[in-house]
Amino acid sequence: MKKYQLSRMIGCLALGVIWGLSGNRCAADEGMFPISEIQNLQLQELGFKLPANEIFNPDGVSLIDGICRVNGCTGSFVSPQGLIITNHHCAYRAIQTASTVEHDYLTDGFLAKTKELEIPAPGYTVRITESYVDVSPQVLEVVTADMPFLERTKSIDRRRKELEQTAEQQNPGLRAEVAEMFTGKTYVLFLYTYLKDVRLVFAPPSAIGNFGGEVDNWEWPRHTGDFSLMRAYTSVDGKSADYDPNNIPYQPKRVISVDPKGVDEGDLVFLLGYPGRTVRHKTASFLAFDAEYRLPMTVDLYQWQIREMETAGQGNRAIALKHASRIKSLANVEKRTRGQLKGLQRTDILERRRAEERAIESYLQSQPNLAERYGATLADIDQVYQSMSETATFEIHFNELRNASRMLATAWQLWDLAVERQKPDLDRETAALERNLPQTIQQLVLAVKDIDRPTDQLMLQGMIQRLSQIEQSQQIPALWQEIKKLQNQPELVADWISSSKLADVEFVERCLKMSPSELAAVQDPLLQWMGNLYPAYIAQRELDKQREGQLNRLYGDWQSLKEQYLATAFVPDANATLRMTFGRVRGYSPADALTKQPISTLRGMLEKETGTDPFIVPEVVKQAHARGNFGDFVHPRLNQVPIAILYSADTTGGNSGSPILNASGQLIGVNFDRTFEATINDFAWNENYSRSIGVDIRFVLWITGTVYGGDHLLQEMGVK
Amino acid sequence: MKKYQLSRMIGCLALGVIWGLSGNRCAADEGMFPISEIQNLQLQELGFKLPANEIFNPDGVSLIDGICRVNGCTGSFVSPQGLIITNHHCAYRAIQTASTVEHDYLTDGFLAKTKELEIPAPGYTVRITESYVDVSPQVLEVVTADMPFLERTKSIDRRRKELEQTAEQQNPGLRAEVAEMFTGKTYVLFLYTYLKDVRLVFAPPSAIGNFGGEVDNWEWPRHTGDFSLMRAYTSVDGKSADYDPNNIPYQPKRVISVDPKGVDEGDLVFLLGYPGRTVRHKTASFLAFDAEYRLPMTVDLYQWQIREMETAGQGNRAIALKHASRIKSLANVEKRTRGQLKGLQRTDILERRRAEERAIESYLQSQPNLAERYGATLADIDQVYQSMSETATFEIHFNELRNASRMLATAWQLWDLAVERQKPDLDRETAALERNLPQTIQQLVLAVKDIDRPTDQLMLQGMIQRLSQIEQSQQIPALWQEIKKLQNQPELVADWISSSKLADVEFVERCLKMSPSELAAVQDPLLQWMGNLYPAYIAQRELDKQREGQLNRLYGDWQSLKEQYLATAFVPDANATLRMTFGRVRGYSPADALTKQPISTLRGMLEKETGTDPFIVPEVVKQAHARGNFGDFVHPRLNQVPIAILYSADTTGGNSGSPILNASGQLIGVNFDRTFEATINDFAWNENYSRSIGVDIRFVLWITGTVYGGDHLLQEMGVK
Repeated sequence: MKKYQLSRMIGCLALGVIWGLSGNRCAADEGMFPISEIQNLQLQELGFKLPANEIFNPDGVSLIDGICRVNGCTGSFVSPQGLIITNHHCAYRAIQTASTVEHDYLTDGFLAKTKELEIPAPGYTVRITESYVDVSPQVLEVVTADMPFLERTKSIDRRRKELEQTAEQQNPGLRAEVAEMFTGKTYVLFLYTYLKDVRLVFAPPSAIGNFGGEVDNWEWPRHTGDFSLMRAYTSVDGKSADYDPNNIPYQPKRVISVDPKGVDEGDLVFLLGYPGRTVRHKTASFLAFDAEYRLPMTVDLYQWQIREMETAGQGNRAIALKHASRIKSLANVEKRTRGQLKGLQRTDILERRRAEERAIESYLQSQPNLAERYGATLADIDQVYQSMSETATFEIHFNELRNASRMLATAWQLWDLAVERQKPDLDRETAALERNLPQTIQQLVLAVKDIDRPTDQLMLQGMIQRLSQIEQSQQIPALWQEIKKLQNQPELVADWISSSKLADVEFVERCLKMSPSELAAVQDPLLQWMGNLYPAYIAQRELDKQREGQLNRLYGDWQSLKEQYLATAFVPDANATLRMTFGRVRGYSPADALTKQPISTLRGMLEKETGTDPFIVPEVVKQAHARGNFGDFVHPRLNQVPIAILYSADTTGGNSGSPILNASGQLIGVNFDRTFEATINDFAWNENYSRSIGVDIRFVLWITGTVYGGDHLLQEMGVK
Repeated sequence: MKKYQLSRMIGCLALGVIWGLSGNRCAADEGMFPISEIQNLQLQELGFKLPANEIFNPDGVSLIDGICRVNGCTGSFVSPQGLIITNHHCAYRAIQTASTVEHDYLTDGFLAKTKELEIPAPGYTVRITESYVDVSPQVLEVVTADMPFLERTKSIDRRRKELEQTAEQQNPGLRAEVAEMFTGKTYVLFLYTYLKDVRLVFAPPSAIGNFGGEVDNWEWPRHTGDFSLMRAYTSVDGKSADYDPNNIPYQPKRVISVDPKGVDEGDLVFLLGYPGRTVRHKTASFLAFDAEYRLPMTVDLYQWQIREMETAGQGNRAIALKHASRIKSLANVEKRTRGQLKGLQRTDILERRRAEERAIESYLQSQPNLAERYGATLADIDQVYQSMSETATFEIHFNELRNASRMLATAWQLWDLAVERQKPDLDRETAALERNLPQTIQQLVLAVKDIDRPTDQLMLQGMIQRLSQIEQSQQIPALWQEIKKLQNQPELVADWISSSKLADVEFVERCLKMSPSELAAVQDPLLQWMGNLYPAYIAQRELDKQREGQLNRLYGDWQSLKEQYLATAFVPDANATLRMTFGRVRGYSPADALTKQPISTLRGMLEKETGTDPFIVPEVVKQAHARGNFGDFVHPRLNQVPIAILYSADTTGGNSGSPILNASGQLIGVNFDRTFEATINDFAWNENYSRSIGVDIRFVLWITGTVYGGDHLLQEMGVK
């Protein structure tokens, strides 16, 4: 950790107090602790064999410096040469981008025998947390209790961007982000090292990295080698730089050391990572809204899109490769969402939250001074979700219209970037900020390359049909005219898709340079149609911001009230900032008379083999197994190569690729999934069934070295 | 056990020696021991708390006298008034027969508040083993080593019938059956009390008795209350009699006492019952034949028929009731067969059997005197299956033709009964023997009542189409002409089905009185068509008997050779005669990192509820659960009402309804299923995964008494 101006650290210490937990909370495995909180945990009592400042040391180098964020995932530096271990599914987009029908690295895997043979991963960035500071006062000074809600959101957004801009000016080369820790209450500015030249080093075949596919995803026992190796590069003088063949490997301040001996049942493990989003501090009315609208509609819409994309790719590997990454991503969310929906139906989370709210309301009645300030808070929050539910069906489908059709998504982004770029930088949407534009454009162009017109046509026709079936009271009248135009006109949709140039990279790149009026003059049916829809999308965005402003104020109040009522503080919801979580290697009982053990083995992978996707064990793995060539990678008690481990640490999306560290802080696995029952984690944690899943380091090393010949990488990691 | 002529018992004692097991075999849980073998087991060492002669006492009354065979299932007498506990699925046909759309006992359950309200179960019989005697010499004296194979089968069959007839003449009122214990080697004559007036006393709703349906069938954990109560009646003077309202309850010589305290994990349990058929002594070539032909074709043909019958019953409860029992029976076999097929693919049973055969062949080479006699035995057995495989596809479909269409099945039975009844009694097929004719005709008439013409039409059309696609080299030319007649003639098939009178009970009853020539004169298209097919079926039956004769001789030799090689004896395959098996209440690991515990509970049933069939928990059960009204039926360690238990005893079909007895011989559950992994039991037993499933007596009593108000039945069982 870079030594930062001392004055800036004060906020963090104060923050530690705000987040301070009562002693008994620390015994549980719940908690995605901000790094500032680590010093307040009784680590030795919990079984840690290293001091807190070995994990996070604001005045020196610690484990934190060996952890990075890889796009939406987490990674660990496992060599002084910037070698990163993360998940196969985190590197998936890079493997797909590098793959062709001739060089199908998704199917065959990829191993760079030398650094020169590593493949650039466009669109990938790596960030390393350097420091943080509480900026809540600076953020909240721009709002008043009674300002209009839309203005509230915009003011906070603008102030956050200002703080980021200032911080980046004061710290050239670093990246700044203001994160909201508690809605409407706590804001922290993080500074990151930000690397843009990332390359693919090793990926096992998908038969290993995605063994079990969507059947096994979110399930235990898993037998998936969900890991890959990438490498971060800098310019020759060690600075962040775009890809250049002359760049040199990034030298991390701290290397995470690998312990090839792994762990056993009952052992303490902890994880560092960037969990994305949890909603544990939201109200029962939010849960009910999600259960009734967002979750089931997501399942329905994604199932349909996955089906169409899968059908399109059957018998055509080129199209299948185009859709591979998007299918994987939608399928992952679809199954998680199904798990959450089932969890909300099967558990008493909603009832318990309602009971807690009733208790707080009773308490309020007994405290006249609090009642005056907070008496209406909960009812007002509930009212926001109530009003959202009235048009939720329409809004969810309206949003999905521009996601499902990738050409329409492109049109939307072209319009929005053109309009936003007319504004002063700090007034723009995040994606259009000057500092984000290069990444935004790179991602857009990559997505255009994957467009398949026949699939896009089915998506657009399908969304038009779905939208036109929603009752008219929910519709926006102006938009309704646009939808009706295409309703029952499949041939017109087909004509638009085939004549539009939005699947053409050069055309899109030309459009990216245009002003809104220039864009309006381009003769392209989809671009023009999006021009007609654009005002409705803007109106929707403003409405969302207005709701956000209202909830920002209300949740800030609600959180304050809860803290007073419970006389305790809380760990903030996940928000893609660096967190620590810990637990033990532990099985669980998913149902009556059923127990799952926490370590799966190679024997189980072979048992699962059917010979058809996603249960194919590659021939080289079977041969290595038949030869009994396991080196030192055998679990001594199970007498098998372990594949995956299960543990009670608290994770969510974004923790993908997080290092699983033993009590001494050595890497013994890579986190990649949760159990089906634990998808509900995002709403509430439960020690009986909230379990995370990682790939065992012994399987990583056996596959990389013994099976696929990457012994040089094991040496680079200091193993052997 | 009735004291029988002492001289007759000598054979049994000799048999005990033949079946004698080496000491270490007794420690395992494999073994369906003939009752003669019980005295040779080291019961006390195994943990039994009762002496062998309490279980089986040839000179007095023992537990055996409280056990009965209920059609193809097993039951126990649990009151001095002939009350029988067996499975819901064993009583299913009786419940279906009693059900109408107005009085839907399948859906609602049935409870007779008094004996007068009990419902007759036509087609049901009860038999109780009274004695047995080895008749191997008498059977085998009719054959020579070189007689033609067809004649061999017919001679043995005829001799068995003669022995049965003589025994029944010597023991009026009893029923005699000669059972083949080891093919071509050992035959035992059993005498049975045989009761024909059986009535339905209590059946829970199918939502309890069949909770989980085909989804959970052959699976663990189960949460199914698969039990029913029936009652056997005799004439007023205590003799076997057909149904008569004046009949009185049968008074069993021994009542199985019920222990409402149940069992716990690790406890010893034993079962008595009538396991139907296992094939553990067959060769690898038999297993390979089954894996390649019989099993996959059964799955295919049954899946199709189930689908058609389910579709037919949708939205029409009357048709659904007609098909209910047949669907349940086919689905049960279909899933078991799927489990066996998977088991044969996934385990090394086939390889192990081949290795054993290779070892025996090597041993043979070293023993010139044996080689001369047995040198060709294995090759000859393999040759039989090889030749069967050449026409297996055709033969299996040809047989299924008359099963799938129930009208054609009726036509077949009418023809066969007419032809067989022309012969002297002892030359007839078993179903047409004078002593069996009343039951055969009763079953036939019951089946006719369940015929649904539209379903039958689909079945006949489907089978014609399937048969016509089989390559011509396999077909019988004469038959091929008949099939071609109907190929691509769906309207002709439809016309035949709609104009045939074979779904009319009175017409069928008239036909049952006709001679073959009278039958040939009846103007009915299906009856006439079956007249054309009949010679082909007879030719097929003769061919099967010829194979049977050949295998009879060969397997007799093979068994002798194996006994010499291993210097041990074997437990005979199951053959629907009374057996004892034992084991412990034990979980198992069905796959890597997965363990199943051996007791399921009411909590698990509620967890499984989806509100749609087959996972509906009846409202009264939920209310009783909510009231916490569990009486003494709570498992003390789990603090829940237990539902089902899992144990390592060795069972197969026919053990359905078997009492699960504790070490003291008290009833603590009723056997009803095996795990999916244990479907392969029939081919080979494995202590790692061969597990049987029973309903816990505490659930039986809670459901019957507390939930459905049958406390008078608990009192009759001596509980409370």
